[in-house]
Amino acid sequence: MSGLALGLHGGCGTLDRSLMSEAEWAEARDHIAGALSAGWSVLKAGGAALDAVQATIMVLEDSPHFNAGHGAALTEASTHELDASIMDGATRAAGAVCATTRIRNPITAARALLDGGQVLMLTGPAADRFAEKAGLAMVEPSYFTTQRRVDTLAGLKRRAAEGTSSKASEAEKHGTVGAVARDAKGHLAAGTSTGGFNNKPVGRVGDSPIIGAGTYARDGVCAVSCTGMGEYFIRNVAAYDVAARIIYGGARLEDAAGTLVHDVIASHGIGAGMIALGATGDPVAPFNTLGMYRGWVGSDGEMVVATHQELFRRGQAA
Amino acid sequence: MSGLALGLHGGCGTLDRSLMSEAEWAEARDHIAGALSAGWSVLKAGGAALDAVQATIMVLEDSPHFNAGHGAALTEASTHELDASIMDGATRAAGAVCATTRIRNPITAARALLDGGQVLMLTGPAADRFAEKAGLAMVEPSYFTTQRRVDTLAGLKRRAAEGTSSKASEAEKHGTVGAVARDAKGHLAAGTSTGGFNNKPVGRVGDSPIIGAGTYARDGVCAVSCTGMGEYFIRNVAAYDVAARIIYGGARLEDAAGTLVHDVIASHGIGAGMIALGATGDPVAPFNTLGMYRGWVGSDGEMVVATHQELFRRGQAA
Repeated sequence: MSGLALGLHGGCGTLDRSLMSEAEWAEARDHIAGALSAGWSVLKAGGAALDAVQATIMVLEDSPHFNAGHGAALTEASTHELDASIMDGATRAAGAVCATTRIRNPITAARALLDGGQVLMLTGPAADRFAEKAGLAMVEPSYFTTQRRVDTLAGLKRRAAEGTSSKASEAEKHGTVGAVARDAKGHLAAGTSTGGFNNKPVGRVGDSPIIGAGTYARDGVCAVSCTGMGEYFIRNVAAYDVAARIIYGGARLEDAAGTLVHDVIASHGIGAGMIALGATGDPVAPFNTLGMYRGWVGSDGEMVVATHQELFRRGQAA
Repeated sequence: MSGLALGLHGGCGTLDRSLMSEAEWAEARDHIAGALSAGWSVLKAGGAALDAVQATIMVLEDSPHFNAGHGAALTEASTHELDASIMDGATRAAGAVCATTRIRNPITAARALLDGGQVLMLTGPAADRFAEKAGLAMVEPSYFTTQRRVDTLAGLKRRAAEGTSSKASEAEKHGTVGAVARDAKGHLAAGTSTGGFNNKPVGRVGDSPIIGAGTYARDGVCAVSCTGMGEYFIRNVAAYDVAARIIYGGARLEDAAGTLVHDVIASHGIGAGMIALGATGDPVAPFNTLGMYRGWVGSDGEMVVATHQELFRRGQAA
């Protein structure tokens, strides 16, 4: 099964180590490992990369540690507006939702749109109605709220009132989850899900639901999911630019992904990261911030989990 | 002023000649000429490509002949949901709105977001509120409705009930307007505005407000605005793919644009078109349908207007 590969990120807005207890960091790592296990079990059973990406992201959406689904950021109005997208590298079909408020796992709605093969992207209440009609799990908006996000929003609003907003950390400002996978047939897939950023304006759409910006997959080339202030990923068509550098420029995946994160996006002075996977080889996970929640299972079958620079090797993926 | 250039499209869903009177075709051509004159006067006065694109699109939005602003398509619910985006090739800043319902000229809201430099994309009622707060012209949704669109929607719903939807023409299904410009400083810009397609699902977002899919501009490379069934332009990241073929592959603009329209998008079996402009030279306007509303002013200063294959030369642009 040397062709199988799975990678994820949980946002490049990782807190300074001192700001969470070691037990909390351990739990976050366990949730990353759990997400990888969910996706890897799909791949090991001969399942599709697309299904593995969805399974991986659903676990991250369900965890309070990440800014997607339960634990998502709050808007300026103390509401949640969730965005997600998913792309099948085999067919280059895709699905996306933005500004949803009641879909428990927004990535499942993106997937349902992909499978439907008609409308690719739905926004707002129509996306919620579509998901409900499709039989997906629906929740009250309060399901997404965690005390940490409530406290963070209060702190941001306090600092905004005090005129000290620039002290807000990357972690308070944004975050996203995403996954990439390659299955036994060599097919690639990518997906991304997010609550945007804390205190974001109502109605704001970032790069996560935008195919080409936050998410892109194409067999034989790469699968990419991005994290960081979405406006800059949209302007730079970041996820597809990684692919284009490979397709037309003959770049290697690690060079293309690294250039986007450390040069193109960093030139705007913002934090950025991505998880990217090529037609062969292991995932790459460049980031230019203090840390990025991330993990992968590569050709050696070993699971690796990390939040800052240090890599935690978790043994063979089950 | 040989560096100046301006081009527009009014959608690749042009009707068969027999379906409008010669007076109606003449009026549509006059509106294209009027839009070009509005943009060209900006460029001739030394104005920015970005301003020329906005001025051009506003005239097309105001005309009932095109599927944007007044004359926009109706959703399945007999409502209007308007999308637009604009990009400045000089800075690669951009703005976009989707699912707006009360902004008279959606391109002006996209422009205001670009100028604001914070949120790039707003969706739904929040986009309307932003525009109102920015002092843009607001209208009642009924302003956008024309009898032609009402009749078209009724016909589509009748055929859907009869199971003969496939007989719906490209013109009934979709349309969009867009413009590209190059100013005296060599800066490029592109913009796109649309009502989507007749009988579209509420909440559906196409490629027009998606930077990289329906709209893209980058100085020294190209400015692009697309028209056609948006889902396929999103999946192929069409507008940026034109740029990427030039940047990384060394392609010529006309070859890159032609490949997208006649090969990549056409491979999905759908109608497609675009207006594209390079760092030098005149706009190119490939399409694979019966016709595409289009027009341009090139280095010789002559205005050209067309709806089907025939080009109407309108003399020197005023």
